[in-house]
Amino acid sequence: MGASDIMRGVLAPVVTPFKADLTPNKQRLIRHCRWLLSQDCGLAVFGTNSEANSLTMDERFELLDGLVEAGIDPRRMMPGTGCCSFLDSVALCKRAVEHGCGGVLMLPPFYYKDVNDEGIYRNFAEIIERVGDDRLRIYLYHFPQMSAVPFSIDLVGRLLEDFPGIVVGMKDSSGDRANLEAIMEAFPGFEMFAGNETLLLANMRLGGVGCISATANINPGGIVNLFDGWENDDADEIQKGLNAIREAVQQFPLIPAMKQMISYYGGDAEWNRLRPPLIELGKADGNKLIADLDALGFAMPGIGDRTPSSDTRTCPSR
Amino acid sequence: MGASDIMRGVLAPVVTPFKADLTPNKQRLIRHCRWLLSQDCGLAVFGTNSEANSLTMDERFELLDGLVEAGIDPRRMMPGTGCCSFLDSVALCKRAVEHGCGGVLMLPPFYYKDVNDEGIYRNFAEIIERVGDDRLRIYLYHFPQMSAVPFSIDLVGRLLEDFPGIVVGMKDSSGDRANLEAIMEAFPGFEMFAGNETLLLANMRLGGVGCISATANINPGGIVNLFDGWENDDADEIQKGLNAIREAVQQFPLIPAMKQMISYYGGDAEWNRLRPPLIELGKADGNKLIADLDALGFAMPGIGDRTPSSDTRTCPSR
Repeated sequence: MGASDIMRGVLAPVVTPFKADLTPNKQRLIRHCRWLLSQDCGLAVFGTNSEANSLTMDERFELLDGLVEAGIDPRRMMPGTGCCSFLDSVALCKRAVEHGCGGVLMLPPFYYKDVNDEGIYRNFAEIIERVGDDRLRIYLYHFPQMSAVPFSIDLVGRLLEDFPGIVVGMKDSSGDRANLEAIMEAFPGFEMFAGNETLLLANMRLGGVGCISATANINPGGIVNLFDGWENDDADEIQKGLNAIREAVQQFPLIPAMKQMISYYGGDAEWNRLRPPLIELGKADGNKLIADLDALGFAMPGIGDRTPSSDTRTCPSR
Repeated sequence: MGASDIMRGVLAPVVTPFKADLTPNKQRLIRHCRWLLSQDCGLAVFGTNSEANSLTMDERFELLDGLVEAGIDPRRMMPGTGCCSFLDSVALCKRAVEHGCGGVLMLPPFYYKDVNDEGIYRNFAEIIERVGDDRLRIYLYHFPQMSAVPFSIDLVGRLLEDFPGIVVGMKDSSGDRANLEAIMEAFPGFEMFAGNETLLLANMRLGGVGCISATANINPGGIVNLFDGWENDDADEIQKGLNAIREAVQQFPLIPAMKQMISYYGGDAEWNRLRPPLIELGKADGNKLIADLDALGFAMPGIGDRTPSSDTRTCPSR
């Protein structure tokens, strides 16, 4: 897989559009990825916010292949490959390596709760051994609120020691700044991504490498702007502005809110569709979301000129 | 699918044996199913205790097909078919219906937490519509400690109303007797299975239909004995005896403990193997488990004459 520094910065767990029959809409996904790349935002496809765990394995393979075939740079991709079955994880990791993806973002197996570190360790050891490729670069996905299976500091240390150069970083979605600090203190050089942009500046000051945030789907330029200028004098002000947008969005369930926004600002009602168990925002919530964002002067530059009829039009390359 | 009353009684979420390379050991699974049936215990294959969520979809299809091909009566089977992706659930349900399985046991989609009832409702509605077969008989699998996605009473009521004859019952693994009572009071005739045998007698007295219990894998005869005689004078005494065995087992993680027991009492070390993130019991724990069970006079009648070299020998039919 690619050099480490290509994964620095801001990545979006790319939201997945669906057709009326709830099958993935590959063309719209490709367009959204192109727009994100045009904003200098990387692609953590098949994340939580991608509804990846609502997709079948076949669908994930088909979408990943489809993105690469469409010319999306795999070095900017960090697909989610952590499944309940380690064999599914092996298959997804292999495909990601074959495509030359910049890394993979891995949940622990998340069905069984209260498992011990040894069991999670064995899950990753089996996967790494069976993938058997030095190009594999794993970012651990720590999201205890959703997976209900945390990565302990002991476990991270053991994985780092036994698989150097393969286990290389973490997305910390716990929202717990103390955890970010503790891990970076324990493992200098470990590539830490904040789980959302509200901790981006703090994370950079601690020595982190960026953030992987849901709301990078709808505010990539703004977040990248902070990443690029985090050492500037106005960084705290910019962080505040990002936080205000994030707060407006997360009044509501994040994934439905983002699909509502892409649908509204992109003029494409087809985006406003989710797979169960998630559901779209109600009309009143959707209206309040847009009104609050309008009050903040929010915009999605460049997304508005994509219309449902312009399927063949590509966004400008970076 | 079969008549409702064939699903009454005691079912085991059948543990899944693995070979050294961690692929499922179909022959040993078939033998264990035959032994369970010989004890009058039904087969909730692909449950939590089957490590079903550690299996790939292909493995689940192959094992289900293999059991039916081996002559295991599908009417005694209630395979787990509830997946994170509703399309996976549709495919598994279809296969179960095609095989004539007595029912299916369905987890809600369990990755996303804090989803609302409407989202879970839509998950089941999509599945039922896409399976499109009146023979489908769904037992809801309520296990909030593991799935972290509960079924509310409102949701159960809505599913029952909209899909009568298809949504027919529940396995309540919450361990919450008040929940058992509340659901049976709200929905007379709804087929309630206690989530383990410690609530079997209480459940029968409330109007339930049996239990689906992990430990039916290792104590099927004893639990069936209580089911058969729950109206007898000695039922409370028998319940106490079952509880003592259950307590001895659940000192330890249940799935490893049961595999240890099948391995020990069946004289077949090959059984003592799990997929990550689960791990086998340590030696000291395993010894204590067996010592405690021996002190209770525990045995697994009929399992001991199965040896690794007797692969072709079938257990007596019921």
